[in-house]
Amino acid sequence: MNGFDLGRHMAETGQEVERMLERLLPGIRGTESRLFEAMRYACLGGGKRLRPYLVMASSGLFGVGTHHALRVAAAIECVHCYSLVHDDLPAMDDDDFRRGRPTVHKAYDDATAILAGDALLTLAFEIVADPDTHEDPQVRVSLATALAKAAGAAGMVGGQMLDMLAEEEEFDIGAVTRLQRLKTGELFAFSCEAGAILGKSDPSRRNALRGYAHDMGLAFQIADDLLDVTGREEDLGKAVGKDAAAGKATFVSILGEERAREQAHLLADQAIRHLEIFDKRADPLRAVATFVVARRA
Amino acid sequence: MNGFDLGRHMAETGQEVERMLERLLPGIRGTESRLFEAMRYACLGGGKRLRPYLVMASSGLFGVGTHHALRVAAAIECVHCYSLVHDDLPAMDDDDFRRGRPTVHKAYDDATAILAGDALLTLAFEIVADPDTHEDPQVRVSLATALAKAAGAAGMVGGQMLDMLAEEEEFDIGAVTRLQRLKTGELFAFSCEAGAILGKSDPSRRNALRGYAHDMGLAFQIADDLLDVTGREEDLGKAVGKDAAAGKATFVSILGEERAREQAHLLADQAIRHLEIFDKRADPLRAVATFVVARRA
Repeated sequence: MNGFDLGRHMAETGQEVERMLERLLPGIRGTESRLFEAMRYACLGGGKRLRPYLVMASSGLFGVGTHHALRVAAAIECVHCYSLVHDDLPAMDDDDFRRGRPTVHKAYDDATAILAGDALLTLAFEIVADPDTHEDPQVRVSLATALAKAAGAAGMVGGQMLDMLAEEEEFDIGAVTRLQRLKTGELFAFSCEAGAILGKSDPSRRNALRGYAHDMGLAFQIADDLLDVTGREEDLGKAVGKDAAAGKATFVSILGEERAREQAHLLADQAIRHLEIFDKRADPLRAVATFVVARRA
Repeated sequence: MNGFDLGRHMAETGQEVERMLERLLPGIRGTESRLFEAMRYACLGGGKRLRPYLVMASSGLFGVGTHHALRVAAAIECVHCYSLVHDDLPAMDDDDFRRGRPTVHKAYDDATAILAGDALLTLAFEIVADPDTHEDPQVRVSLATALAKAAGAAGMVGGQMLDMLAEEEEFDIGAVTRLQRLKTGELFAFSCEAGAILGKSDPSRRNALRGYAHDMGLAFQIADDLLDVTGREEDLGKAVGKDAAAGKATFVSILGEERAREQAHLLADQAIRHLEIFDKRADPLRAVATFVVARRA
């Protein structure tokens, strides 16, 4: 990749996204300040900011202004963080730690966590619909539509429902693939398509980015399953081995470690091939596909 | 009101909204069908459909097409129902009955209820952003913005946070008024403004509707507090007397029954005065203001 330093680039972008989130999240004031605190706790000061990075990288392909791209990046991070807050609840995955610190319902309480999640999801739509995100209302409304489809019952929430059911039912490789495609793939796809929407790109480029995102997303998820088996809690900042303990089918439990690792690399290569129509401006996206299967945390 | 039959009109509109919801909610299919079932259970077959009625009534002032208005009405009902599903959770108000039948987390489970609520909120934005809701993207994006502000941290969710805190803190009449203005008033206001947005009305008419909605909404809430003291569970389809048992300040606990009743009537009159700039096409809205303080359920 001609010396492209993904780690540095992601860290820099992460700081810009952090500053944008800082501005867009409600300030702490009033009797209901507990809600605003919990929203900020959920979103600020942590995470790889992978989805926001995908927005910035896809926006870079189409010459989209940084300010516009950063707003959409922040909106997606709000959706991602809301999903973590709700998924961590005792009624769902019941996780006490996330990013090396107590989850929102542990730091506050369950009711506050439910409400903070609800408010973050709503804020994401407020951000994309705002004229400051793009001057063309057609672009903003397309973003809202794509985000709603990616995050809703036919996307992320549907995937989380499947994830809850995976503890009770026998899932084969096809079912696990569909689960992950919905649970994490659709939001990755929206992150990559966001640049195309903001840049009013033709459908073929948007579709190529969608194909890239789904393959990269699956590779990412297989790597995640591998880390759940081989990773250390200190590195990951969250509990490991929970899927196996719950008897939940994962790529690793079905394929075994070695074949899962091979599959992740195949998918990363396939993801990169979707980018052939783009020039070197797609190098950050190519680097992400390589990174997600090599990561240690 | 020249023989205007609100009850019949609301019942007819409620049926049209039911049919639109029936079409817009996901069909029951696939491994994750439990999610779609819970979403439908939460939204279909019950409720006064007051917010949808306000959308239809305000749309009637501006000659908005019925199909467009019904879609927005359905979207608002999705938001209202999501808020009930989350508010009823054990971590929140812990209610087992709603509209005379088990709440969603009792009929399914807590995880499904959380996810069904999340999906309903997301669906509402998908509906308003869809080209079928209005041909002008500026109108759709204005609806999304107004809905997000009304439903989010500065609106309904902020109000619910205040409601949770009201069990621990001493709320005076100002604090209770603000709580209700956020918790229910903002969504009433959006319902009434929706007609003005769809009809591309001037700001003065939109503001009049906003003023109407906030006064009517407070009158509605005071009537609700009175019913919590004087109503019967059989009529209301939900538990009564919970606020008093939880030591939560309400309009009735602060003002007493008689003054609360007076206040509700004053607010209803005040709401109707906001409508002076409209002709008889505003009669349905006038009738609503009278109805909310007279209702028995």
